[in-house]
Amino acid sequence: MKKIKVGVLGATGMVGQRFVQLLEQHPWFEVTEVAASERSAGRSYAEALEGRWKQPVPVPERVAGMTVKECKPGLDCELVFGALDSNVAGPIEEDFAKAGYAVSSNSKNHRMDPDVPLLIPEINPGHIALIDAQRKRRGGKGFIVTNPNCTLTGPTLAMKALDDAFGIEKAMIVSMQAISGAGYPGVASWDIIDNVIPFISGEEEKVETEPLKILGKLKNGGVEFAPIKISAACNRVAVRDGHTCCVSVQLRKKAGIEEAIGAMQQFRGEPQALKLPSAPAQPIVVRMEQDRPQPLLDREEGKGMSAVVGRVRKCSVFDLKFTVLSHNTIRGAAGCAILNAELLKAKKYI
Amino acid sequence: MKKIKVGVLGATGMVGQRFVQLLEQHPWFEVTEVAASERSAGRSYAEALEGRWKQPVPVPERVAGMTVKECKPGLDCELVFGALDSNVAGPIEEDFAKAGYAVSSNSKNHRMDPDVPLLIPEINPGHIALIDAQRKRRGGKGFIVTNPNCTLTGPTLAMKALDDAFGIEKAMIVSMQAISGAGYPGVASWDIIDNVIPFISGEEEKVETEPLKILGKLKNGGVEFAPIKISAACNRVAVRDGHTCCVSVQLRKKAGIEEAIGAMQQFRGEPQALKLPSAPAQPIVVRMEQDRPQPLLDREEGKGMSAVVGRVRKCSVFDLKFTVLSHNTIRGAAGCAILNAELLKAKKYI
Amino acid sequence: MKKIKVGVLGATGMVGQRFVQLLEQHPWFEVTEVAASERSAGRSYAEALEGRWKQPVPVPERVAGMTVKECKPGLDCELVFGALDSNVAGPIEEDFAKAGYAVSSNSKNHRMDPDVPLLIPEINPGHIALIDAQRKRRGGKGFIVTNPNCTLTGPTLAMKALDDAFGIEKAMIVSMQAISGAGYPGVASWDIIDNVIPFISGEEEKVETEPLKILGKLKNGGVEFAPIKISAACNRVAVRDGHTCCVSVQLRKKAGIEEAIGAMQQFRGEPQALKLPSAPAQPIVVRMEQDRPQPLLDREEGKGMSAVVGRVRKCSVFDLKFTVLSHNTIRGAAGCAILNAELLKAKKYI
Amino acid sequence: MKKIKVGVLGATGMVGQRFVQLLEQHPWFEVTEVAASERSAGRSYAEALEGRWKQPVPVPERVAGMTVKECKPGLDCELVFGALDSNVAGPIEEDFAKAGYAVSSNSKNHRMDPDVPLLIPEINPGHIALIDAQRKRRGGKGFIVTNPNCTLTGPTLAMKALDDAFGIEKAMIVSMQAISGAGYPGVASWDIIDNVIPFISGEEEKVETEPLKILGKLKNGGVEFAPIKISAACNRVAVRDGHTCCVSVQLRKKAGIEEAIGAMQQFRGEPQALKLPSAPAQPIVVRMEQDRPQPLLDREEGKGMSAVVGRVRKCSVFDLKFTVLSHNTIRGAAGCAILNAELLKAKKYI
Repeated sequence: MKKIKVGVLGATGMVGQRFVQLLEQHPWFEVTEVAASERSAGRSYAEALEGRWKQPVPVPERVAGMTVKECKPGLDCELVFGALDSNVAGPIEEDFAKAGYAVSSNSKNHRMDPDVPLLIPEINPGHIALIDAQRKRRGGKGFIVTNPNCTLTGPTLAMKALDDAFGIEKAMIVSMQAISGAGYPGVASWDIIDNVIPFISGEEEKVETEPLKILGKLKNGGVEFAPIKISAACNRVAVRDGHTCCVSVQLRKKAGIEEAIGAMQQFRGEPQALKLPSAPAQPIVVRMEQDRPQPLLDREEGKGMSAVVGRVRKCSVFDLKFTVLSHNTIRGAAGCAILNAELLKAKKYI
Repeated sequence: MKKIKVGVLGATGMVGQRFVQLLEQHPWFEVTEVAASERSAGRSYAEALEGRWKQPVPVPERVAGMTVKECKPGLDCELVFGALDSNVAGPIEEDFAKAGYAVSSNSKNHRMDPDVPLLIPEINPGHIALIDAQRKRRGGKGFIVTNPNCTLTGPTLAMKALDDAFGIEKAMIVSMQAISGAGYPGVASWDIIDNVIPFISGEEEKVETEPLKILGKLKNGGVEFAPIKISAACNRVAVRDGHTCCVSVQLRKKAGIEEAIGAMQQFRGEPQALKLPSAPAQPIVVRMEQDRPQPLLDREEGKGMSAVVGRVRKCSVFDLKFTVLSHNTIRGAAGCAILNAELLKAKKYI
Repeated sequence: MKKIKVGVLGATGMVGQRFVQLLEQHPWFEVTEVAASERSAGRSYAEALEGRWKQPVPVPERVAGMTVKECKPGLDCELVFGALDSNVAGPIEEDFAKAGYAVSSNSKNHRMDPDVPLLIPEINPGHIALIDAQRKRRGGKGFIVTNPNCTLTGPTLAMKALDDAFGIEKAMIVSMQAISGAGYPGVASWDIIDNVIPFISGEEEKVETEPLKILGKLKNGGVEFAPIKISAACNRVAVRDGHTCCVSVQLRKKAGIEEAIGAMQQFRGEPQALKLPSAPAQPIVVRMEQDRPQPLLDREEGKGMSAVVGRVRKCSVFDLKFTVLSHNTIRGAAGCAILNAELLKAKKYI
Repeated sequence: MKKIKVGVLGATGMVGQRFVQLLEQHPWFEVTEVAASERSAGRSYAEALEGRWKQPVPVPERVAGMTVKECKPGLDCELVFGALDSNVAGPIEEDFAKAGYAVSSNSKNHRMDPDVPLLIPEINPGHIALIDAQRKRRGGKGFIVTNPNCTLTGPTLAMKALDDAFGIEKAMIVSMQAISGAGYPGVASWDIIDNVIPFISGEEEKVETEPLKILGKLKNGGVEFAPIKISAACNRVAVRDGHTCCVSVQLRKKAGIEEAIGAMQQFRGEPQALKLPSAPAQPIVVRMEQDRPQPLLDREEGKGMSAVVGRVRKCSVFDLKFTVLSHNTIRGAAGCAILNAELLKAKKYI
């Protein structure tokens, strides 16, 4: 099979690097373009990184030598992955869509646009039908799909399994988030060693609203948001990778602990059915030890694409509570955007 | 004024050391006895520490040379502070009470005994009346009072202020707890560097039940528990001192953010009225910055005796949410037990 | 090829676990016995671990179910890997050797015995000839070989390359050592978060003497120690894995920076010639960036079996200085002992 | 006594904040001006900090409301403390000196100027005589004095005591430096959690040369550098404050361990004789425990102004080795510059 040419927008940043790393040796996609700010354009990718490659393996040699382009249409590829700062991502992604590119974005800018799918492919693969509306609006084959904020990915996967089985009415989510979520250089060591920072700008709003669109239903060519109330408190802790969330949920239909565990363990989605290359065998892994999940031990589960749930137990205020972990730069960012693109390819949108 | 002679039970452990440190230069109390396990008995306090003094200032010279005694009545003091492991604390404290000593304990063993006051002196100073029942039961002047688990101290102070003003119906508490809460050697560095541990044995039960007694009312010679539902999730993070809690509360009477902040800021208790030596000027300090409280920056507030609240805001599921921090080995342990003893002295129980 | 049956002594500890993990899927060896303290004996390996499995991958299923034995001869295997605490390792290893087992030990007890090879297989493979003397002494086919202390492995590999090329007269070594070097639970988090501990019991003596034996020459049936003076200062830092050492060396023959780098890069040993399964392609990897090696980025080089050198530069007191990193529980412990056993197998001692 | 008016240049940075904090309630000096970049000028100090006050106590109220000025002569003060970035410090400090101000700088720019004293007041107070040459050169009463790089302060104090007693010929220094040494935001948490960075730009050169000037002798109106060879390797570790150095020294005259310890313990300088306000009672504190100094436990010794030495022992290559710790932003920066100014005041240069 001839691989699909892809570009990475914002390729020198923390999430951009993850795209480059995860796409190396991808069976369907091949990075043919790396694009970044004007300052980087014209230099080789290796040079443009300026010593700031922060991934667990070296820069793929093939990409290291590529010339970085500006983030403007004209790139030699069919699909672009978006890892741009939200200060600039909005109009750039729109330009690419208008120019006929498929855009799979990690940026927040278009997530809540009515005709843009906000996708976790195990949860709402059907939302890709919104692409048709986009195409109509823009008048070409280009489109934008987005993946959600990194923090809510784990909780929303778990909530989906429970919502399908029992219905969810309310949820409280308290996060303990890794430093990689703030990019690089991101969180100063002076601020986080021996500390917790109980605030992450804009994060709680996303955690409270994005899941409602993801868990919503297609209706009249748009998404009807799920009738769930979510309250979130987001914290930064001294962990490298992996966001841990304590979640309490009020269900519409009572459920025992065992049933809830069963619902999560058995949960599978379209990516599993289609055997997409980046799909984990199990979207939700439930650990029975009393002290799991732990970011250090569980973040690489399913190559960083599984949500790991533990401590499923009765909540004395709501019905159930549990802890859920997901890898914030893989499942919560680059990995999810790649899985989105794989779904689109399987569904012939690319 | 002649100082009251006090002993410290379990004086070589982490909390015992805090007692020794905080009592040095206390205006009312003077450490005349340090007691610990059989193994330590007979050695000087300095020797018995075996290089494990873990406080921010050196061992007080006066105490360093004292001979460590066994934890049995016969100590030359009127009051003992209890910092024993809960495996052994129960009967030892009972023995001291029977022998006529006043016992101010940090151990969990007697906290839920019907006639033992579980005290946060700003909240339920009246509960010391239970001592009369104890004295009747045992037939002497000895008694036991306890301070609560370290994690709930901050949240319960904040809830008291809100409960007085608006009534609390339900609360969700998620903690991010410091390593000093596990004693020494306590948490292995291998377990916590670059990690979160989402479980602390027995902790959630305490956080869900002890506040109900503390916030309860005296009735028919006992405590009628407060009609509040609490759900807790407790986590360990890589912080040295200071437990941070995210709290959401459902109120009985609606309250605006400003009113809630006012209620907490203006909250004062008996220790402030009596000007007890260890009482902080303000039991609850409210910070208005969006990223406070932080353990690193706020744990020493009021010499470690103030709860620091921040991020008071609307909760989209309950009414209000906020973050509260308190120093776990001062306000949450030794400092609280000392404040309890000061109250008892002021009220002539000692 | 039929695999050689091997046992692990001290299989439940930190290094013992590494043996079990690294030997899983080994092409030549198969773990058939796990042995530990009396307390563990009789339980399954999974149970005996008591939740303390601390490796980056799960317990190998095949081993999890094995019954733990006591550390006494009678095990169904030909070779045992020693990961026992040095309080007990000495006589136990001697018993196994007497009973005819090959013992590849990570413990310090027999390292300096005159007829026991202290091996880094890239450096002194010829020292295995000492086994003949051992066999004569004990009168059987059993024997003991040891690997050195974890800290000196990296520096000694680098010094070997330089010693061969230019001769080394003196060396100063200052280490910054990972917490895993202290086993589990090992270093208390209270002692190391926001701290450096400038002392590790017994470590400096080993770093100053063991390399002299390793770099020594066989003579009259014993080892003549290398005529090098080494001074060491050993420190513990808040790093999970990987010991970093700053080394200054005085050479017998002057050498330029480029020559020194070349000598290290081109250095190869018998394990590379024999293509032993655990041998890294390059025993010494030299990084040219000014800020490498770093434990976080370089400890997995060569699957944890390569020493990574960087910052090779002039020393204004001696001739050269550089920084060298090696993985302390792989190259510096279990991995080295396995490589030793592979060498012995290739040389028909097993 | 009327206080001397002082200004702080670069008042919003990490070291500038330390100046503001340490000068609050200083018996001789009063901050009357805070100056910073053009961007900050015109705003109140509190605003200009933009939430980046990073000291252990709140911003002094008196200073919080001051209007930040540009770093140009015309400030209402007699003395300025320099905490500017070295990119801009050079000409600015020169301008202030020309305009008649006394400048006590922490920046590196003028440290090696022949007529600028590079001062550690316990070591080379006599070097202030160089000020006369400066005044002649510039033709006014203004002048510049500097304090050295933060890393070498502790080692140089210890070396001074040994040099006076026994003569030092050579020294090897390996540092483990705190993150605060890099300013704020400084070291990214992503780079240092679970890591060591074995390189700090420009640091080794300073550690190898600045002590030679400090330990040098006045001769013919200049400083004759001390005939000592120093080699340094500088590393960053995950410690908040306090630089720890392992030092080996070759002496000109043999010395026993006890003698060396005695020389360091008894060492006193002019600041102690003159009882300068910021002078610690003991410039060098020697700890006899085998595992000290530790940054966490010892950095506040003498209010952060004492060097703490431990592990004094034989070196098997040179004569002696030891570990020395000093607080990098107090003794190694702002505290030293203030002590310098106190000396100048006592000597009537201000």
